[in-house]
Amino acid sequence: MAKEVRVGLVGCGTVGTGVARILLTEADLIEKKAGVRPVLVKVATRDWSKPRPFTVPERLRTTDWREVVESAEVVVELVGGTGVAAEVVKAALRAGKPVVTANKHLLAEHGRELAALAKEAGTVLLFEGAVGGGIPLVKVLKESLVSNEVEEILGILNGTTNFILTKMEEENLPFEEALRQAQEKGYAEADPTFDVEGVDAAHKIAILANLAFGGFVDFSRVFVEGIRGVELLDLRLGRELGYKLKLLAVAKRRPDGKVEVRVHPTFVPLSNPLSTVDGVYNGVLFKSNYLGRLKLQGAGAGAMPTATAVVQDVVQAAKWLAECGRAADLTPLGWDDGELEVADDFYTRYYLRLAVEDKPGVLYQIAKILAEEDISIAGVLQQEWILKFLPDRSEVVPLIILTHKAYESQIKRAISRIERLPFVRSAPVLIRVEEERF
Amino acid sequence: MAKEVRVGLVGCGTVGTGVARILLTEADLIEKKAGVRPVLVKVATRDWSKPRPFTVPERLRTTDWREVVESAEVVVELVGGTGVAAEVVKAALRAGKPVVTANKHLLAEHGRELAALAKEAGTVLLFEGAVGGGIPLVKVLKESLVSNEVEEILGILNGTTNFILTKMEEENLPFEEALRQAQEKGYAEADPTFDVEGVDAAHKIAILANLAFGGFVDFSRVFVEGIRGVELLDLRLGRELGYKLKLLAVAKRRPDGKVEVRVHPTFVPLSNPLSTVDGVYNGVLFKSNYLGRLKLQGAGAGAMPTATAVVQDVVQAAKWLAECGRAADLTPLGWDDGELEVADDFYTRYYLRLAVEDKPGVLYQIAKILAEEDISIAGVLQQEWILKFLPDRSEVVPLIILTHKAYESQIKRAISRIERLPFVRSAPVLIRVEEERF
Repeated sequence: MAKEVRVGLVGCGTVGTGVARILLTEADLIEKKAGVRPVLVKVATRDWSKPRPFTVPERLRTTDWREVVESAEVVVELVGGTGVAAEVVKAALRAGKPVVTANKHLLAEHGRELAALAKEAGTVLLFEGAVGGGIPLVKVLKESLVSNEVEEILGILNGTTNFILTKMEEENLPFEEALRQAQEKGYAEADPTFDVEGVDAAHKIAILANLAFGGFVDFSRVFVEGIRGVELLDLRLGRELGYKLKLLAVAKRRPDGKVEVRVHPTFVPLSNPLSTVDGVYNGVLFKSNYLGRLKLQGAGAGAMPTATAVVQDVVQAAKWLAECGRAADLTPLGWDDGELEVADDFYTRYYLRLAVEDKPGVLYQIAKILAEEDISIAGVLQQEWILKFLPDRSEVVPLIILTHKAYESQIKRAISRIERLPFVRSAPVLIRVEEERF
Repeated sequence: MAKEVRVGLVGCGTVGTGVARILLTEADLIEKKAGVRPVLVKVATRDWSKPRPFTVPERLRTTDWREVVESAEVVVELVGGTGVAAEVVKAALRAGKPVVTANKHLLAEHGRELAALAKEAGTVLLFEGAVGGGIPLVKVLKESLVSNEVEEILGILNGTTNFILTKMEEENLPFEEALRQAQEKGYAEADPTFDVEGVDAAHKIAILANLAFGGFVDFSRVFVEGIRGVELLDLRLGRELGYKLKLLAVAKRRPDGKVEVRVHPTFVPLSNPLSTVDGVYNGVLFKSNYLGRLKLQGAGAGAMPTATAVVQDVVQAAKWLAECGRAADLTPLGWDDGELEVADDFYTRYYLRLAVEDKPGVLYQIAKILAEEDISIAGVLQQEWILKFLPDRSEVVPLIILTHKAYESQIKRAISRIERLPFVRSAPVLIRVEEERF
């Protein structure tokens, strides 16, 4: 008979209900595989009257999270947000109990404090479910890459925005219509701000950056640009050029020691394996010094995939408690507890779309500004070629410029000069281009 | 100061040298991340005079593996094969020491005995490096999927054959020429039998099946067909039909409780994410009940990727020893130590290419046999369409039949009847088709 470990759950929404379901129905399988039996002893949520796809037995229910923290040996926090969730996590860690959470918001903004608390209390804070749903991204960084220097992470980390971009691309829908369909299907919330503005993906890439590079990113310094402004025209032009538009999360260690941590709509070449990660799927590319490139792709959200990740953490903590009396962690968040210096400026290629009057000298003057700002042009798109994408002939035509790598500050300076040119008729569209291949 | 754990290495070939390199140069990084310091204390190999890309210090060298087992707390076996390697692993396990190996041959054929030995001795047998090189396939099965029923594994698990098939396809090379190029590049050994005949991939899928389904596959019952007989014509015809040819390793749990474990050249639709795993890369698709589909892709071989996997196991064992005094394992090989019943027969779709005389009644007689064997035809390819792939017009023409799902025994019976038809001019080509999508 395997040793039993008492597990408590705070928060019984979509993922919480999934966790309860797995713990209550798969205890035998887990015991057989892991040699330890996690026993769900208490579940707290504010409102037990809401309908749920799985019924938590009456005897396990409470509305008081403190009861959960008291009775459990492993505490699962699935409340979300940074209010009560923070209280729960802190109380459990202070009591020396391993905490499992899927709360990216809390970790991205208060990870440093929580990691320190776990260390002080001699316990662990596990969070596989916080990033990439069921895809074991945290595990790969913490365990598989324990001997490697991580150089770069490129990820599609938000299923909602990826669904919207795929819909726009495949069905030629404008953003608002694709968003509406995502909401209808339950892939986007009534208030989709966190997803659409890129904040959710930014929370996730900040957590991965902390783990990968060691240290903590000041979340307010993460560069975030969402997909609300994305125009169908650019998706289609990009496609003609061999690119797909993705909301890419990027974390890079630069030679100067600074890290780039950023989220923005990005053109990804079709030869990059992330270009085929479509719909609600998430996908991530890790690049490290010995292992090289590793790609993972799967369900980045959803109740049962995320619950699978949460339960794996619970079982890991339970295994340690059962065998060792306390839980240890291969590469804890905060393995290096310094601050990561986030680069103000980043270095990439750009796609620049301008609306210009169709008259002589236009390209000359724009090229002159780019040259003066030391930005090298990789390609200019002919206006005739673009015209087929436009509804009707007009005296204002788009001009597309692809640049070689340059600093964001350079391109921003160039744009501020270009948009003051008299023949430039509306605000330029700037999209970063990621040429990384597998 | 983190606790030190003594690590010994038996075998100093390509991967062994990589492991020594990482342990000796990355000890600080590992200590910082994992809070434990693995210290390489002894390395055994038969011949120290061979040139190696990394020099193991004189003081660590020995030619006697027993010395390694005696002096180390964690023993790494990288000898390969089933001779000395088995002795090393058994001696270390009997001494109660965690063993890390990348020896798929040993595990596929003697895994049951070794797993029992580890259990008896209260220690662990770790083998991330044995399957998929640096891709954490073992970890995903053991840890991420601890609460899930695994339904299916599809994998490209051998880089050599994948390189050869990619070369054949991309450069229209016949098998022998592509093999020669693989040997020139060091991707294939002078004797490529294990790779080319599918045995290496079979070892790997057998190990994954044991872990996924719980129990042990009798390796002699794994169906193995290599790529030596693959003709360029079929690759090209397949491409026209929307397929890529891959040496696919398959492990499936069937509704009747039996498992299919098999390796054979397989047509994979371009919409399947494994179709883009080209060259020496490996890629695997896991399907499980809660997590759904998860795909991993990366370096399936090579010194440093495989060494990364081996070192991760070493660090995991060392962490347990340092914190707990002994090592435990989330889902050990042999978590269910029964025998897996391997299906004799398997159930899939087929591509059948026949060389037939170009005369009336041919299709009628073949279709009649298939109908009598209860095999449903999904498509027949017109002969005119195929002719463009043939060097010159001839009275013998290819006829391609795609079937719906059928048992291998049915198709084999049908083929033995078809090849006796007077107008069938050479042995039919049979290729399995895997329609699984992401």
